[in-house]
Amino acid sequence: MNRLYHVPLSPFCRKVRLVLAEKKIEIELVEERYWEPEPDFLRRNPAGKVPVLKWQNRTLSESQAICELIEEVNPNPMLMPQTPEARYEVRRLCAWFDDKFYNEVASKLLMERVYRKTMGLGYPDSRNVKDGLKAIKVHIDYMHDLLERRRWLAGDQMTLADFAAAAPLSSLDYISDVDWNRSATVKDWYAKIKSRPAFRSILADQVPGMAPSRQYANLDF
Amino acid sequence: MNRLYHVPLSPFCRKVRLVLAEKKIEIELVEERYWEPEPDFLRRNPAGKVPVLKWQNRTLSESQAICELIEEVNPNPMLMPQTPEARYEVRRLCAWFDDKFYNEVASKLLMERVYRKTMGLGYPDSRNVKDGLKAIKVHIDYMHDLLERRRWLAGDQMTLADFAAAAPLSSLDYISDVDWNRSATVKDWYAKIKSRPAFRSILADQVPGMAPSRQYANLDF
Repeated sequence: MNRLYHVPLSPFCRKVRLVLAEKKIEIELVEERYWEPEPDFLRRNPAGKVPVLKWQNRTLSESQAICELIEEVNPNPMLMPQTPEARYEVRRLCAWFDDKFYNEVASKLLMERVYRKTMGLGYPDSRNVKDGLKAIKVHIDYMHDLLERRRWLAGDQMTLADFAAAAPLSSLDYISDVDWNRSATVKDWYAKIKSRPAFRSILADQVPGMAPSRQYANLDF
Repeated sequence: MNRLYHVPLSPFCRKVRLVLAEKKIEIELVEERYWEPEPDFLRRNPAGKVPVLKWQNRTLSESQAICELIEEVNPNPMLMPQTPEARYEVRRLCAWFDDKFYNEVASKLLMERVYRKTMGLGYPDSRNVKDGLKAIKVHIDYMHDLLERRRWLAGDQMTLADFAAAAPLSSLDYISDVDWNRSATVKDWYAKIKSRPAFRSILADQVPGMAPSRQYANLDF
């Protein structure tokens, strides 16, 4: 059995979980206590990060490299389009969410509202929270612009880019930090992807001591 | 003519320049004054970053997505291996250098020693410089371990991963921050990639008011 070492609200872990589930690849989930780095963990991944996937006797890290590998060896259903230009757009958007959205929004809000508590680092830094909540508006508007022109984020088919975006949004939705009223278009897109069977495991996540928002697991939010 | 908006010492710009040059694709280089964000620049790339490549009437951003596109449409010489597993290793290492090496080493040293000066932000923060110089040792040791087992970083052929690593190292070599005595294996690898014609344009770079280190353009360093 393949095994994924993960942290429940980590956007990168969720991206890999969603892609594996979409392709109906079963895995055993093992929660990593990232705030207590152990020699075992660092041996699994010299980069010291999650996710780490044990896959057919190999130990894999870096979520985007993992997703591209899963896509190449399990192309059904296809999450990468056929032309180099369309694949470029998928990769550009994956980088957008993994890098820009993560640094400007997700890492700030998750760090202040979740990890600080888990790691016993004291009260949230309200400046980071404010910056994250301001930046998420710009990103939702950007998604709105894309989705006004396309059925899915990178084009007319669902791709890795949709999972790269849905993953951090789902983590932020857990802590009530997504204003779904800002764009009906973005909300419709999220409702569409959230109702996929691949989302079930993520919607069942429970962080100890931190209940999810009311709409989190609700498909009709 | 294709056009690349860039910053000379930016590792991500250098990665794209090296890959284009390796494939003998001519481009016009336009230096971006990143410290004076202008509407034109932000219109070229909503992410507000370099590199931005004007490519056959499209405006492309995100260095890794750009490199994969260039590779797919110009596969000669081939910088991605043939099997999904080998491609995974290339992508993992590209992410390693673009993300981990950049955040722990390159961004710290370049910010403190170059950008601060260019942007008029005062004296270097010696803590960041110290952290960067400490971290680069760990990365050189990691590269040493890989190169003891392989001819190139990701395997026995030269790939995108070698350019993803050589790009930030070349920027740091400009400011004398690479201790080539630490590993003869890593030094040999760098001498090999540095002597490729693709490197010529980068070795001719001159940052105003900041002369390169003595060994920077020397192929026999």
